[in-house]
Amino acid sequence: MKLFRPTIIVSAHCDLPCGVYDPAQARIEAESVKAICDKYQANTDPEFRTRALIIKEQRSELVKHHLWVLWTDYFKAPHFEKYPNLHQLFNEATKLAGAGGSKGQADSAVAEQLLSKIDEIAKIFWETKQA
Amino acid sequence: MKLFRPTIIVSAHCDLPCGVYDPAQARIEAESVKAICDKYQANTDPEFRTRALIIKEQRSELVKHHLWVLWTDYFKAPHFEKYPNLHQLFNEATKLAGAGGSKGQADSAVAEQLLSKIDEIAKIFWETKQA
Amino acid sequence: MKLFRPTIIVSAHCDLPCGVYDPAQARIEAESVKAICDKYQANTDPEFRTRALIIKEQRSELVKHHLWVLWTDYFKAPHFEKYPNLHQLFNEATKLAGAGGSKGQADSAVAEQLLSKIDEIAKIFWETKQA
Amino acid sequence: MKLFRPTIIVSAHCDLPCGVYDPAQARIEAESVKAICDKYQANTDPEFRTRALIIKEQRSELVKHHLWVLWTDYFKAPHFEKYPNLHQLFNEATKLAGAGGSKGQADSAVAEQLLSKIDEIAKIFWETKQA
Amino acid sequence: MKLFRPTIIVSAHCDLPCGVYDPAQARIEAESVKAICDKYQANTDPEFRTRALIIKEQRSELVKHHLWVLWTDYFKAPHFEKYPNLHQLFNEATKLAGAGGSKGQADSAVAEQLLSKIDEIAKIFWETKQA
Amino acid sequence: MKLFRPTIIVSAHCDLPCGVYDPAQARIEAESVKAICDKYQANTDPEFRTRALIIKEQRSELVKHHLWVLWTDYFKAPHFEKYPNLHQLFNEATKLAGAGGSKGQADSAVAEQLLSKIDEIAKIFWETKQA
Ligand code: NI
Ligand code: NI
Ligand code: NI
Ligand code: NI
Ligand code: NI
Ligand code: NI
Repeated sequence: MKLFRPTIIVSAHCDLPCGVYDPAQARIEAESVKAICDKYQANTDPEFRTRALIIKEQRSELVKHHLWVLWTDYFKAPHFEKYPNLHQLFNEATKLAGAGGSKGQADSAVAEQLLSKIDEIAKIFWETKQA
Repeated sequence: MKLFRPTIIVSAHCDLPCGVYDPAQARIEAESVKAICDKYQANTDPEFRTRALIIKEQRSELVKHHLWVLWTDYFKAPHFEKYPNLHQLFNEATKLAGAGGSKGQADSAVAEQLLSKIDEIAKIFWETKQA
Repeated sequence: MKLFRPTIIVSAHCDLPCGVYDPAQARIEAESVKAICDKYQANTDPEFRTRALIIKEQRSELVKHHLWVLWTDYFKAPHFEKYPNLHQLFNEATKLAGAGGSKGQADSAVAEQLLSKIDEIAKIFWETKQA
Repeated sequence: MKLFRPTIIVSAHCDLPCGVYDPAQARIEAESVKAICDKYQANTDPEFRTRALIIKEQRSELVKHHLWVLWTDYFKAPHFEKYPNLHQLFNEATKLAGAGGSKGQADSAVAEQLLSKIDEIAKIFWETKQA
Repeated sequence: MKLFRPTIIVSAHCDLPCGVYDPAQARIEAESVKAICDKYQANTDPEFRTRALIIKEQRSELVKHHLWVLWTDYFKAPHFEKYPNLHQLFNEATKLAGAGGSKGQADSAVAEQLLSKIDEIAKIFWETKQA
Repeated sequence: MKLFRPTIIVSAHCDLPCGVYDPAQARIEAESVKAICDKYQANTDPEFRTRALIIKEQRSELVKHHLWVLWTDYFKAPHFEKYPNLHQLFNEATKLAGAGGSKGQADSAVAEQLLSKIDEIAKIFWETKQA
């Protein structure tokens, strides 16, 4: 954990469009999913576990939503030409937040895979911002 | 705009709690609010303006929500003792995203004030993470 | 239970603002939370208990939301000067509807504490309406 | 406006069911709708008016939702036998919060009709509580 | 399952109104509820079952919502005169998607009853479209 | 308009997964978007137009959501191999429901394009069901 986190340019999304996008929104929710998996595995109390599953379902859905917004609203045809695997990357990332991924399993390793996939997308995102 | 943005530790919130919090979530939406105000002032098309007001209402609500979560769920009694103005800061920040602030006015200067207030909160947040 | 309940002035909230606020909205959801806790303790059927936790999570969130709205949108600087503990009261009340309170525990006693805290807020609310 | 409002038994709804219902939830939102109509008619600023229409749409939807919950979840077959016009009353009340009513018109008189219809329902509701 | 499904005129709802309505929206969610019940009964894994209950709760709520919209927004006074049992049909159908029906029970037979009731409504709906 | 519409097998989606999917959900909302555009162009009343824009924004978002679910949750790697343009088709369709499409313009021709694109997807969907 960084001792002090500088104010950074963060970004959002909407369909005006405001023009502000940031993969951090998806990553934030995926971090939450991973922390929930960790806590789930460490705690066998049935009430806690039920609550963890309820919340993990919501956070995973938010991951999917934030990724879908980037895929549809931020990335344009030239990006998909330059990064031919970008469609597949997003499709795999959103699947990793669904039934076959972090929704279906309370498994920290799956959440890690989701985080890695989001980081791959973020890398491309920030490259396109450079361009 | 930074040329390349490194992957950073971002954080989220939920009421498990997952333990992940980050003022970036509020800031992201406030950046969006400001961009919407800028575009609103630069475009007099009535359809565009109506859409801008619809979306600004939603984004401002998200700012309020993310701030409320930090205020209630992240900050604890010892923090409020150490930072006696913290309650007021959050109250002012959330008001700045409401009817008397960015909801009620499509004014970039108001959105800037909201961003500054969020940055004051973020500074305290990251100091408490250090402690 | 009253035999006949007269039509009373009830009130709401929004960010126009419409000017209508009422602590009853938070109390209604907290009453629901308490009833859910009571039923949870009296029924060990696992399907019922899972459903109770799902719904208690939602109702607790609504309690938080309605309280946040009052704190940010109804109460103004002069109120906070006159009632110096008002910030803390709201902070404690919303925490009581969160992970450390009625979300984290299916405990009728916790729900009772939440109701009492809301009643303290309601008392102040109606005093300010008098003023 | 009453000088002091006593704590009253308020009630909610959910599908556990928690067993707590109260027509106040619908009335609260309808009061808000009426206040919005009043303010709309008194203010010709286009930004204000657009915001009023956005919020009136949401509040009217909440009226419909709270009424639907009462109609489906609180009232049972014997109630509908005893009050043969109850179905029609709910149907008219929810229509009054829709396109042909408070959604479609920013008209305080329409909002008053909606409030009256809700009061008719509330009267029956509290009679059934007596029974 | 049909081998190829032709593009058909489907319909939606909103409160403009757009004029597009279709009982298929309720049926789609009820089909989902039934499939969830089937899977629930066939799988005793506690994580799966908790997830099934979470999702069944949401899908059942959507069934209720889509039916309520038809009842309030599509059907008019002359329809209720022509089909005197229409109010009761909708009331029973929405109850079948609530606590006493598909929310309260993970029972495929209950979901089947819900589907049948929706089909009764759909039959009347399409008859009124003919008229 | 068909005189009588037979009960058909409709389908839904969720992330259990229930296994029920149907492009009709996206099409239903797109039909609504088109009807809203038609009515918007035929009616210059400012209140009506504002309401139309509010609702068109919501319906367009639902189109995007239903398409995203199909793209991520229904279609699997073998489908994307067999239909190499499927990623692009979904990306274009969701863009057509966004700022550059039916959200940004109250234009019936744009809504028609959206409907056509959804029909292209539906054709592939039903082919894969055949397989
Ligand atoms: Ni945006
Ligand atoms: Ni969290
Ligand atoms: Ni209000
Ligand atoms: Ni309830
Ligand atoms: Ni419609
Ligand atoms: Ni499903």
